[in-house]
Amino acid sequence: MATTRAWPDPAVAADLRALRERAPLTHCLTNVVVTNVTANVLLAAGAAPAMVPAVEEAGPFAQAADALLVNVGTVTAADAAAMRAAVAAAGEAGTPWVLDPVAVGALPLRTGLARELAARRPAVVRGNGSEILALAGAAGGGRGVDSTVGSEAALDAARGLAAETGAVVAVSGAVDRITDGERVVEVPGGHVLLTRVTGAGCALGALMAAFLAVSATPLDAAVAASAVMKAAGERAAAGARGPGSFAVALLDELALLGRP
Amino acid sequence: MATTRAWPDPAVAADLRALRERAPLTHCLTNVVVTNVTANVLLAAGAAPAMVPAVEEAGPFAQAADALLVNVGTVTAADAAAMRAAVAAAGEAGTPWVLDPVAVGALPLRTGLARELAARRPAVVRGNGSEILALAGAAGGGRGVDSTVGSEAALDAARGLAAETGAVVAVSGAVDRITDGERVVEVPGGHVLLTRVTGAGCALGALMAAFLAVSATPLDAAVAASAVMKAAGERAAAGARGPGSFAVALLDELALLGRP
Amino acid sequence: MATTRAWPDPAVAADLRALRERAPLTHCLTNVVVTNVTANVLLAAGAAPAMVPAVEEAGPFAQAADALLVNVGTVTAADAAAMRAAVAAAGEAGTPWVLDPVAVGALPLRTGLARELAARRPAVVRGNGSEILALAGAAGGGRGVDSTVGSEAALDAARGLAAETGAVVAVSGAVDRITDGERVVEVPGGHVLLTRVTGAGCALGALMAAFLAVSATPLDAAVAASAVMKAAGERAAAGARGPGSFAVALLDELALLGRP
Repeated sequence: MATTRAWPDPAVAADLRALRERAPLTHCLTNVVVTNVTANVLLAAGAAPAMVPAVEEAGPFAQAADALLVNVGTVTAADAAAMRAAVAAAGEAGTPWVLDPVAVGALPLRTGLARELAARRPAVVRGNGSEILALAGAAGGGRGVDSTVGSEAALDAARGLAAETGAVVAVSGAVDRITDGERVVEVPGGHVLLTRVTGAGCALGALMAAFLAVSATPLDAAVAASAVMKAAGERAAAGARGPGSFAVALLDELALLGRP
Repeated sequence: MATTRAWPDPAVAADLRALRERAPLTHCLTNVVVTNVTANVLLAAGAAPAMVPAVEEAGPFAQAADALLVNVGTVTAADAAAMRAAVAAAGEAGTPWVLDPVAVGALPLRTGLARELAARRPAVVRGNGSEILALAGAAGGGRGVDSTVGSEAALDAARGLAAETGAVVAVSGAVDRITDGERVVEVPGGHVLLTRVTGAGCALGALMAAFLAVSATPLDAAVAASAVMKAAGERAAAGARGPGSFAVALLDELALLGRP
Repeated sequence: MATTRAWPDPAVAADLRALRERAPLTHCLTNVVVTNVTANVLLAAGAAPAMVPAVEEAGPFAQAADALLVNVGTVTAADAAAMRAAVAAAGEAGTPWVLDPVAVGALPLRTGLARELAARRPAVVRGNGSEILALAGAAGGGRGVDSTVGSEAALDAARGLAAETGAVVAVSGAVDRITDGERVVEVPGGHVLLTRVTGAGCALGALMAAFLAVSATPLDAAVAASAVMKAAGERAAAGARGPGSFAVALLDELALLGRP
């Protein structure tokens, strides 16, 4: 049933060119650990990141932006209010958005919030296997921000979550598995060093948001972002001595990917 | 009317030596995307950064510090209270300070706050063309955090804003244009990669704050910071493969600039 | 009286192997300047970082985690509430924790908070000389986040603080001095570039927390973290052009240290 797509898939390459041409303004409400790397990943790929976390401003900015990311990784009650305002405004304006349910499961604030937001028409939900299982109500979550299961073990939960919410669900792992509830696309590749630097998964969610502004469908957007990140990760790992030089090279490779 | 200054202008080089000798304690109330790179840029150049965002502490620390930066890039209502306290304390203590009106224009919280603070005697206001136009009341702002106009298009607004507030106004762009309302100094150079990593403009504002502690006038401080950042950016770009290696080299070059 | 330990001390090497095998889940309530580098240092060394700052979640997560870091570098009143909740929960669950009293002394919120928390059984208190003197009530603190005294000048205060609180007290400096109130261990080495990038000291506190989950005693944990950081710093400095390339190499060397 599953198909496989990976860089240099022509549709992915075309979406990356479109991203660079249009530089979608991507509003990120994300966690304090990864703000910088998220902005730099978006810039390197060709998007225009901005982060506007005040409850007074998050809504208006979500309406002006081309896409929105909501990542609950370090959410507080004040952040949650801004996220609700941004999601409501995005719904009114038709701004497509991504939900990243970081570490949902046992933690009360984020788990309730993520379930509430999942019901408000995100275009894409992105998480690791444990997060998708927990958001779907199937299990109790991972270990901190890390998954305790692979993406394949969460595929049924992902399909169910997609059917329930109308969102494309992207399960990150050694192979990314992305489904709209019916089709399943597998994106292989990448490198284990992507798990040894903080923020690669969170930045992937942001990149999916950016691609929503240029890809034909949310499924295409999620696949394009995964394929681009995995390809850049592979290339970056090839010359890296460790996680420090890998993180630097990842940004370089995101900017270089597909250029002559 | 305009004069041009660029590294290795002798006055700039003297100010950079003074910065390294005195390591001014530079209090940064800045946005959550760029805290780390701001601190690292200040450290690399030779200043001593510190960030004290609590409303209970921001005022006392602004009095103890040698300079203050207020950057509204991700401001919330709680941050705004701390910024007001810091600016009030800086005014009492004579601590010079920089206002960076990130993305002012349509967004309500920051726009009102930036206008309020601009009237409270900042030594320098630094922004891109769209931000300076918006702060001066001449236009509606840029696209997210990016400018939609060059620095030259904002020069009249900058002059007016300088006359109105008493601040030196620095407009960042391919050429930085800096005015005290009468004189205009142009700082050419730099590299487009400075716009492809997050925080270069924000860190420039912080560097202007640090130079306020050692330069003869706010105009000299703003010019010195711009000239140093542009020179380091040029050198960093020369050996960079992309934005990741550029950001790393930028810190190295800031530390190496002008050393034998 | 003092003994000296440094990489490749066999006990330190054994603790580092244990850290990599068990990947302790290390909950960090830390300042907004260093979140990213803290997470990356922990990942590079082999631990599993997570940051859960909401007051509703910080306690439950401190109970689930293997270790906790509380760093007051940019603390606000809202953060303080989460820190109190996390420390209380850690006490109940037996989760060992580190207190990093950044810039205590004159600043009111953090100074009162750090003194309150120091009385609640941290396993380790880590700071620079000025911070340890200030926390012990012996002096007025440093200059911003920087120490104005060396680690030796704070040793008596550290011994007294250890006796008073039951914590191991680690004083960072050109030589790190670590005491349980009776024994003193000196950890030499490192490099001045560790003071020219932001967050090295804060990340060291986080690394001490991670080692608490695997070392035999808090003294061993603090010594292991110091010895590992100093060794990685030396190796990173050997090939660095400046602070940018040093910060990158530091992560690489943390991951490479002791591997064949």
